[in-house]
Amino acid sequence: MGVNSLIFIALTLLLSLTAEASHCSIHGVPLVRNIGELPQDNYGRPGLSHITIAGSVLHGMKEVEVWLQTFAPGARTPIHRHSCEEIFVVLKGSGTLYLASKSHGKYPGEPQEFPIFTNSTFHIPVNDAHQVWNTNQNEDLQVLVVISRPPVKVFIYEDWLMPHVATKLKFPYYWDEQCFQTLPKDEL
Amino acid sequence: MGVNSLIFIALTLLLSLTAEASHCSIHGVPLVRNIGELPQDNYGRPGLSHITIAGSVLHGMKEVEVWLQTFAPGARTPIHRHSCEEIFVVLKGSGTLYLASKSHGKYPGEPQEFPIFTNSTFHIPVNDAHQVWNTNQNEDLQVLVVISRPPVKVFIYEDWLMPHVATKLKFPYYWDEQCFQTLPKDEL
Repeated sequence: MGVNSLIFIALTLLLSLTAEASHCSIHGVPLVRNIGELPQDNYGRPGLSHITIAGSVLHGMKEVEVWLQTFAPGARTPIHRHSCEEIFVVLKGSGTLYLASKSHGKYPGEPQEFPIFTNSTFHIPVNDAHQVWNTNQNEDLQVLVVISRPPVKVFIYEDWLMPHVATKLKFPYYWDEQCFQTLPKDEL
Repeated sequence: MGVNSLIFIALTLLLSLTAEASHCSIHGVPLVRNIGELPQDNYGRPGLSHITIAGSVLHGMKEVEVWLQTFAPGARTPIHRHSCEEIFVVLKGSGTLYLASKSHGKYPGEPQEFPIFTNSTFHIPVNDAHQVWNTNQNEDLQVLVVISRPPVKVFIYEDWLMPHVATKLKFPYYWDEQCFQTLPKDEL
């Protein structure tokens, strides 16, 4: 490998580190942002497209956070719960909300099924186990998601019979992982 | 006036009172709601259409609230501030955000102007005086608005030179007035 190649690799590495640092900095973020130009990724979850429209880690929000998420046919969230409020607005498509009340006992149990559809809205009661699933085989499901108390702390169930106490905390969550480490850690 | 007329008037009054009470009750609100069927009103503000998608007074939310608002050409919010976080997502149309930083002194002063456009997002720094104005003469401006700490407590300025301390608190806000009185009063 020649000297020129080494210099090229070093410069590429430096540029990519700088780009990542700048992507994670809340300084210099424009006040009005074009959502179409914001970072979009599946964060390792096939069939998902996630955009943080306004967030704690990326934009310095302290009390609310807004996401734009698209689920391909068959794609879904894990079964999970969180102690924040969450509101969904369905922009496109349809699917199913599975929701189990925490009052059922030591585990979620069989969830109720709610059809969700374009121009519908619903909110998840705090700490209730739930799952949003694009059960429409013909169309993407696009939702706007609002949460309180960001960044989100998610407890994930393997199935509806898993005891609440056996769930694992996923924090920081998928889309917060890359930049979370650059902020001072805060208590849960 | 005959007895039949009196009975008719009494029944109509009873029905309308029952309807209002049921409109204001958070009990029995369906979990998944069709946004197209939610109450929509201008609440005395010409050129405004406001829908509370998920709210404190109407739906029992405690930490976040979501509105769908449409401003006809020329319609605008008052110049105002609030101590909650607020995120806008522009769904349709374009306009102007006027924003004055509170750091300017005892009154807002000349605001900065930011063009806002379809598929853009912005948030208002806590306590900064601001105004959203549909300055596009050819098209409605439709925005989704997210606030923390509902129901919203708004301080209104008559102009950008009005001292912060001279502003008037509007609480409950326009769309919360009708139903707020049926809930126990909470401290600000």
